[in-house]
Amino acid sequence: MEELRIPGPTPCPPEVLKAMAKQMINHRSEEFEGMMEAVTANLKRLFQTKNDVFLLTGSGTGGLEAVVVNTLSPGDKVLALSSGAFGERFITITQKFGADVVPLRFDWGKPVDVEAVRQALKTEAKIKAVMVTHNETSTGVTNDLAAISSLVKEYDKLLLVDAISSLGSIDLPVDKWNCDVVVTASQKGWMVPPGMAMLSVSQAAWKAHAVAKMPRFYWDFTQAKKYQDKQQTPWTPAVSVVFALSVALEMMLKEGLPNIIARHARVGRAARSGVKSLGLSLLADEDYASNTVTAVNSPAGVDSEKLLEVLREEHHIELAEGQAHLVGKIFRIGHLGWVTEKDIEKVIKALKVALPKLGFVGAAV
Amino acid sequence: MEELRIPGPTPCPPEVLKAMAKQMINHRSEEFEGMMEAVTANLKRLFQTKNDVFLLTGSGTGGLEAVVVNTLSPGDKVLALSSGAFGERFITITQKFGADVVPLRFDWGKPVDVEAVRQALKTEAKIKAVMVTHNETSTGVTNDLAAISSLVKEYDKLLLVDAISSLGSIDLPVDKWNCDVVVTASQKGWMVPPGMAMLSVSQAAWKAHAVAKMPRFYWDFTQAKKYQDKQQTPWTPAVSVVFALSVALEMMLKEGLPNIIARHARVGRAARSGVKSLGLSLLADEDYASNTVTAVNSPAGVDSEKLLEVLREEHHIELAEGQAHLVGKIFRIGHLGWVTEKDIEKVIKALKVALPKLGFVGAAV
Repeated sequence: MEELRIPGPTPCPPEVLKAMAKQMINHRSEEFEGMMEAVTANLKRLFQTKNDVFLLTGSGTGGLEAVVVNTLSPGDKVLALSSGAFGERFITITQKFGADVVPLRFDWGKPVDVEAVRQALKTEAKIKAVMVTHNETSTGVTNDLAAISSLVKEYDKLLLVDAISSLGSIDLPVDKWNCDVVVTASQKGWMVPPGMAMLSVSQAAWKAHAVAKMPRFYWDFTQAKKYQDKQQTPWTPAVSVVFALSVALEMMLKEGLPNIIARHARVGRAARSGVKSLGLSLLADEDYASNTVTAVNSPAGVDSEKLLEVLREEHHIELAEGQAHLVGKIFRIGHLGWVTEKDIEKVIKALKVALPKLGFVGAAV
Repeated sequence: MEELRIPGPTPCPPEVLKAMAKQMINHRSEEFEGMMEAVTANLKRLFQTKNDVFLLTGSGTGGLEAVVVNTLSPGDKVLALSSGAFGERFITITQKFGADVVPLRFDWGKPVDVEAVRQALKTEAKIKAVMVTHNETSTGVTNDLAAISSLVKEYDKLLLVDAISSLGSIDLPVDKWNCDVVVTASQKGWMVPPGMAMLSVSQAAWKAHAVAKMPRFYWDFTQAKKYQDKQQTPWTPAVSVVFALSVALEMMLKEGLPNIIARHARVGRAARSGVKSLGLSLLADEDYASNTVTAVNSPAGVDSEKLLEVLREEHHIELAEGQAHLVGKIFRIGHLGWVTEKDIEKVIKALKVALPKLGFVGAAV
């Protein structure tokens, strides 16, 4: 079988895939409502929040759009912290819907510089919200969200968090860190196929929502809340994904969130030390390296596309390319969700065999 | 096993459910691209179109929002033909995004009156687009889309069609009828779980898109087109639903579209004659009665919620309630997708047993 080691979709355990194959039920039935009630309660435990948590049928990008259109009005000034493709995507969505985005950009591979954020909050008038990518999937960097959130709250701004590839894998105590809207997606650390975005909405976010004038219908939190009061969704949900999520959440709670976070930390370390043992270098500074995705610099002279092809065809391992201007310059190992150190060992072993074939001598180190 | 006879989600054949349980693959891989190419080509055959056809991860309502935001600008005048809950939903979405909607409403249970549409097109200046629900799921009415489209094109307006519960089940030759954007959803006649909206985009719709100023990102046709050129989707798709759709479309093409349409016509007739044989009356005029959903007037004195409960608990048959002001006044039998006359016979037999228990004497007829 192929080893899928991209940062999403992630491989699903057999129990989860079995749930995907369940026959359809009425999404307005007590059976569905009972499942939704448990799923929502379990999500809240893993989000570490007492805030509202909603399921929206769509990809993570749909979830980002939901965050934007539910909390902002055209013309609102938003400080957007970006150091990668997903930070840029959050910016683009926000601009498309007419907000006045003040981008604060950092080199790809670097984290958000908290002091620069402080400076921006100090000097830039009328900022309404700060948006940040907790874990930048395109570069393998995890930002210091605890420090960022503490600063954003010191200045009493709304904090909108893309936690698509971190939540459920990397510690993100939503309430403790006062995050107002936090969004993730089923195909990441949750071990479930794509199709659902999940997000939390704080009291401050509800206040922002009440005056937010961006046009919205499908993603509208007011509708989501109204139907959640009867444990339903306003529109027909991806029922199979809810079945699967229901099973995956039980598995996650059985393992325990602290254990899941520790496992991802071990797996992340294994990926980084494995890569370095081959003589390769990491894109991200290790102090900020992500425990869910590792971005590796393509060694000089090695065609990374060719490398991924050899891994795929000769080792049945699927890694991910770089994105945007990093295409061909890096490759990425996804290690979130259903993953252990053993899976990473396989990747490192395969790289050790494949790299010399492509002319990389450093692999002998 | 429960017989799910609601107008979506519809039951899925075992082959389709098996496909839902397939392990994840990279949505940027050749394997996925090959599948997307076949799915798109097969969808075009069943849409009877040479237009672009896209898959969007979301519910049918998300697909409706995609139609609106991709073709219109705030302030555009739109003639909206409505005679049920889904016609109203299309109106609401269009209004939320700032269009100037001219609603042309008909009684629920009645079809769109084509002469009234002619009158409106004649008298109402500056109409840019006409929107219509081909098959009104809330009332079990199929509108005369051939006549409506011919009229709309006589006046050279854009035609936006909600065909969520008709396409693939009821004849809708997209190109022959000059429909500009037509939207459907996976959980309807396609025999696939919910999670995907599918839609076609004509050349005229592309022209409208080029100047359409409603804000959009997630649903943007330009992005969909750009990625479709490499047989991908811009954002992570509901991969499992694409697996399932791939299998279902092959099954549909094997049966053949004319046979599928004929089967739905037979099933629709069986539902209507069965219901009448029990002494019950139909909400819709039979000349316009839908072949995918039948709305039945609750007999005087019978609590329709209680009736559905008895059917569910004693006969393992799940029917649908009425919507909006028809709650408690009608119940609905869904018969689209994986359904034959035998399935309808079971429903009628169960109704025959259940109705007298609730005090309906006409059932003896």
